[in-house]
Amino acid sequence: MRIAVINPNTTEAMTEAIGVAAARAAAPGTTILARQATRGPEAIEGPFDGALCLPGLLQAIRGAEAEGADAHVIACFDDTGLDAARALSERPVLGVGEAAMHLASLVSQQFCIVTTLSRSVPTLRQNVRRYGFADRCPQILASDIPVLELHRPESGAREKLAAMILAARDRGAEAAVLGCAGMADFAASLTEDLGLPVIDGVDAAVRLAETLVGAGHRPSKIGGWARPARVALLDAF
Amino acid sequence: MRIAVINPNTTEAMTEAIGVAAARAAAPGTTILARQATRGPEAIEGPFDGALCLPGLLQAIRGAEAEGADAHVIACFDDTGLDAARALSERPVLGVGEAAMHLASLVSQQFCIVTTLSRSVPTLRQNVRRYGFADRCPQILASDIPVLELHRPESGAREKLAAMILAARDRGAEAAVLGCAGMADFAASLTEDLGLPVIDGVDAAVRLAETLVGAGHRPSKIGGWARPARVALLDAF
Amino acid sequence: MRIAVINPNTTEAMTEAIGVAAARAAAPGTTILARQATRGPEAIEGPFDGALCLPGLLQAIRGAEAEGADAHVIACFDDTGLDAARALSERPVLGVGEAAMHLASLVSQQFCIVTTLSRSVPTLRQNVRRYGFADRCPQILASDIPVLELHRPESGAREKLAAMILAARDRGAEAAVLGCAGMADFAASLTEDLGLPVIDGVDAAVRLAETLVGAGHRPSKIGGWARPARVALLDAF
Amino acid sequence: MRIAVINPNTTEAMTEAIGVAAARAAAPGTTILARQATRGPEAIEGPFDGALCLPGLLQAIRGAEAEGADAHVIACFDDTGLDAARALSERPVLGVGEAAMHLASLVSQQFCIVTTLSRSVPTLRQNVRRYGFADRCPQILASDIPVLELHRPESGAREKLAAMILAARDRGAEAAVLGCAGMADFAASLTEDLGLPVIDGVDAAVRLAETLVGAGHRPSKIGGWARPARVALLDAF
Amino acid sequence: MRIAVINPNTTEAMTEAIGVAAARAAAPGTTILARQATRGPEAIEGPFDGALCLPGLLQAIRGAEAEGADAHVIACFDDTGLDAARALSERPVLGVGEAAMHLASLVSQQFCIVTTLSRSVPTLRQNVRRYGFADRCPQILASDIPVLELHRPESGAREKLAAMILAARDRGAEAAVLGCAGMADFAASLTEDLGLPVIDGVDAAVRLAETLVGAGHRPSKIGGWARPARVALLDAF
Amino acid sequence: MRIAVINPNTTEAMTEAIGVAAARAAAPGTTILARQATRGPEAIEGPFDGALCLPGLLQAIRGAEAEGADAHVIACFDDTGLDAARALSERPVLGVGEAAMHLASLVSQQFCIVTTLSRSVPTLRQNVRRYGFADRCPQILASDIPVLELHRPESGAREKLAAMILAARDRGAEAAVLGCAGMADFAASLTEDLGLPVIDGVDAAVRLAETLVGAGHRPSKIGGWARPARVALLDAF
Repeated sequence: MRIAVINPNTTEAMTEAIGVAAARAAAPGTTILARQATRGPEAIEGPFDGALCLPGLLQAIRGAEAEGADAHVIACFDDTGLDAARALSERPVLGVGEAAMHLASLVSQQFCIVTTLSRSVPTLRQNVRRYGFADRCPQILASDIPVLELHRPESGAREKLAAMILAARDRGAEAAVLGCAGMADFAASLTEDLGLPVIDGVDAAVRLAETLVGAGHRPSKIGGWARPARVALLDAF
Repeated sequence: MRIAVINPNTTEAMTEAIGVAAARAAAPGTTILARQATRGPEAIEGPFDGALCLPGLLQAIRGAEAEGADAHVIACFDDTGLDAARALSERPVLGVGEAAMHLASLVSQQFCIVTTLSRSVPTLRQNVRRYGFADRCPQILASDIPVLELHRPESGAREKLAAMILAARDRGAEAAVLGCAGMADFAASLTEDLGLPVIDGVDAAVRLAETLVGAGHRPSKIGGWARPARVALLDAF
Repeated sequence: MRIAVINPNTTEAMTEAIGVAAARAAAPGTTILARQATRGPEAIEGPFDGALCLPGLLQAIRGAEAEGADAHVIACFDDTGLDAARALSERPVLGVGEAAMHLASLVSQQFCIVTTLSRSVPTLRQNVRRYGFADRCPQILASDIPVLELHRPESGAREKLAAMILAARDRGAEAAVLGCAGMADFAASLTEDLGLPVIDGVDAAVRLAETLVGAGHRPSKIGGWARPARVALLDAF
Repeated sequence: MRIAVINPNTTEAMTEAIGVAAARAAAPGTTILARQATRGPEAIEGPFDGALCLPGLLQAIRGAEAEGADAHVIACFDDTGLDAARALSERPVLGVGEAAMHLASLVSQQFCIVTTLSRSVPTLRQNVRRYGFADRCPQILASDIPVLELHRPESGAREKLAAMILAARDRGAEAAVLGCAGMADFAASLTEDLGLPVIDGVDAAVRLAETLVGAGHRPSKIGGWARPARVALLDAF
Repeated sequence: MRIAVINPNTTEAMTEAIGVAAARAAAPGTTILARQATRGPEAIEGPFDGALCLPGLLQAIRGAEAEGADAHVIACFDDTGLDAARALSERPVLGVGEAAMHLASLVSQQFCIVTTLSRSVPTLRQNVRRYGFADRCPQILASDIPVLELHRPESGAREKLAAMILAARDRGAEAAVLGCAGMADFAASLTEDLGLPVIDGVDAAVRLAETLVGAGHRPSKIGGWARPARVALLDAF
Repeated sequence: MRIAVINPNTTEAMTEAIGVAAARAAAPGTTILARQATRGPEAIEGPFDGALCLPGLLQAIRGAEAEGADAHVIACFDDTGLDAARALSERPVLGVGEAAMHLASLVSQQFCIVTTLSRSVPTLRQNVRRYGFADRCPQILASDIPVLELHRPESGAREKLAAMILAARDRGAEAAVLGCAGMADFAASLTEDLGLPVIDGVDAAVRLAETLVGAGHRPSKIGGWARPARVALLDAF
């Protein structure tokens, strides 16, 4: 099985890191195609970047499909372009935010999301409502740790995340979703240290993509995801 | 006052028609700048088109801002790109769908939306929920009349719309929103014939744009619409 | 165009102040008719006052209609009598609370309301839900500053409001609605000082009334606002 | 125990009929005080009548309190004036619509409301949402049988109601609430004939009033129902 | 009238205490049958206990019905087994949690629940949503006072509860529901001391059971509570 | 990996059929342990059966855990006992209803559920709301085909299901969930014939169980699923 993991921004280091995380999640028989937009923003920070990454993201999905991808993962916690991608593709498409929330709701009655930027919170709030998890996820918290700081031990990022999750737990959260791909490496150790499920989206999405491919479920073409009339337009970007 | 009315597709005839409708709505001192995307889909039919029109739409907004626009109207009933545009601009930005729903909720307790394509209904349903009008607007109906047929008298389009609205009224609708720019010309006569408010989005959005400009209200830069870091990226498309 | 701004209480000084605020908001061609109930409570503090002001309020609307009013504004943030007024009148009727919330939802994704009395909060919470803004407006805050203190510089009222709005911003509010006519004078300067939209209801309602009159939209007479059978009863009060 | 049952309209025959129904519901030790507004509309048909009955309704409540009433029932299915009455009184106050819905939700998972006038439906829909029963009561149906026809056997009113309830049952209703005092006499026989609970509001409200009095529960004076400052204003009407 | 009050756990002392509380609530002509499960958990602490008590609970209901019970009260604040009991019985069945919430919503616009164990909060949150009171009851608070400590004066339990309710009041609660049968004795004095309604579930449920019996309302057998085919299975446990 | 698939009723033929369906869904390295309750109802038809199956269901889960199960599937579309099982077990537990709904919401914007018994609809409606899919799944339809008829070709069951799904599609459903284990064999062919995803719960749950085990996610023990104090009680049943 081939799962394309599409980084919607143009930063190659991030694509590589996402590819590594995806490969760690993949089943033995699964090949990960780590791909990225060839144009557009180098990071997705808010809805403007989320809009401008879309041509590159959709081109990458089409390209991966030509490579034989059986499913696609949009590797941005905002799940930008999810509907467009599901209209474009006949294959399962998963957003990493969406995937993490679904798994969190299967192992907790209430969970929190811990993300980096405050400006992402309103988009996540919209997504949480749209997916149906508003009652499950009343706490969406921004750490305001710069992404690049996440992995410098002296930044104390991991400790700060741990403290945020524990505070959320005291207000009712029973699990935590990490709202930034850069936090993926912390998931396992935070789960163990904090004593509650801590869920990374890339991991969740790759696994759910395998699940949907295995089950043979594809996006319904009844309704909003009907095949678009103007796919060729992608060539113009 | 200058109100830019941005057609997010590339069909000039539609831009002109929208410009005429906008001018009809505008106050005496208002100049309408009817602008359009210079690249992207020639019509917005579903979320794939809605995604690919965004670079052109955002470029047009930036261009209109350079021309001195005091506010922007996104002239697509799907309100595509609304968050991105509000992040990009310091000026009020209105979607025509959103605008029509706000006015409908001020003159009725329940309203329906009558649109053309079935594939647009899920996007409109998402928007209705997001804006807070789910209880107000339980009926979103697709006529499946091709847009080009709307104005051919022998197509019976106006009669078909009237019948749909009356049926919606019998199920509780007290007003109707026309979910397609091509229906704008019918609004006044349907209002009169059917005895209930029938609201066109371009008209509503131009008037609400004037309202916001007059009041001095601009999109909040706290949260998701904070000014993006990579505006210059628009030049690359 | 003539916009009647109806103070539902009997305090003339308040009617005058509201008239001044309304005139400031009105377009050049608009005449403001500042009118008031001739009987009933001298202030609307809670639902009992909200009930007893209704005969006077409805009489004043009928009177204004006889003077040629094209629309009516109910100048009480509780929006008391809104349905009754829309049933009585063939003209647009706007509540100042409702109007402010609609504009706030066009320039922010989340807003707060800052009002004076704690006892008003439950009524505002009901209104927020009814209008569809429950997700948009999770914070309704009472300053418990007496209305008469609002404009005495030594009361520190403006500073207290500013502090409340900033605290609300830290909990997610991106804009603020002033829930008391007496706060109207602070809107512009708070907007500037705090860096987020601060919205006054009288201003919002006058502008939206002009919008609806300009667009020719009137309250639907299908459903709950059907013309009442016993209008003459107003003479008996 | 004394339960005041207040007819908010001025039609004495209706007050008598309500008094009879209330007496039938009352426990042996309970005295029913059937009272009515001395001024205002002779029937409550929509929100305009609902507004104009309030001074008379509140005066009647104050009068009943002077007679020693231990609780009050507002005998109009719209529950008009409920918040004002709870602010005015230190005693339990129940609306007949509210009471019927509470009991219906204790003996069914979904119920319908069958009322007379279409124009009442939007107000009932608001009430259903406000009380929290929106999921429980998705069907609010108007028979459009004139109230005066209800009891003329040749009108077929009872049969029409039965048919409406059965149709609602086929769409999921497991119980029915009668949304008009004039239908009270049908409740018992419809329950038996249709094989599902059919609930009358006057009956429900009198019993719940006894329940609250017995339990010693009174309307909270924290919040919106705090004692009003201007009770004496009632003398002016 | 005979009201069976069923303690779903096997602790006789608790059955007795519940019986005393129920008898205090009962009307003069009512006989309380205090019954309990003869097998199963000795306390209901979370959903596992809530599941294992069900055979005993349902047997006790069947037994009480054979004794002529006219209605049943499930005396556990989690309302465990409510749907099963309503399917089993032709008589009204009330949960004490449900009953307390209904009465609280008739004497306040917002109320809180104060319970003992944190692990009960998610179940109560589910119940609050299911009954329709999510907007009414945003605060569900756990005291984490061990049940056995509740009545030892030196534990300070009553003071701790009072402090929690006052804190909830400052966040908007206008009434309080006691979420543990062991707190019943505090209801009256807390009501008086704190100046807001404090409601005990056993008291509420007994009174509502009398109300439903008096009114002749029984659980609808249309839908999920249809009479089960395998009642005899109860003998096997 | 070992996945226990627990039939909560006592009918062996059903356990076998479920085991076959589960084995078909399982990955190569997965062993299915098809287990069943040894006491309790022979079918789960409504909440009474749903309650009485719980001791047997929980015993079977404990037994499977002793056999080394890595996860548990509750093979009843009502998801009965889900919270109790998650409290009992340290391993992932999935209900087949829940699992099917999660997958449906990943491949459609709106889906319907097609089940057998009308009496199951209210329970499913509760579950749909609780999981967050109320907006996604407005149609829950009962075929009222007896389970035993499902596989007799002359019963026309498959054709009836197909017709129901197509009718649901015309009202907005983009995918269908089969609400009865006995329908599992139809899923693949209905998907193909009807042109939209048709999802079986056993298949979905086995795959999601593998997903959660693979990811290392276990039910949170913070909150309602904390380890119960009285597990040994299971021996008494």
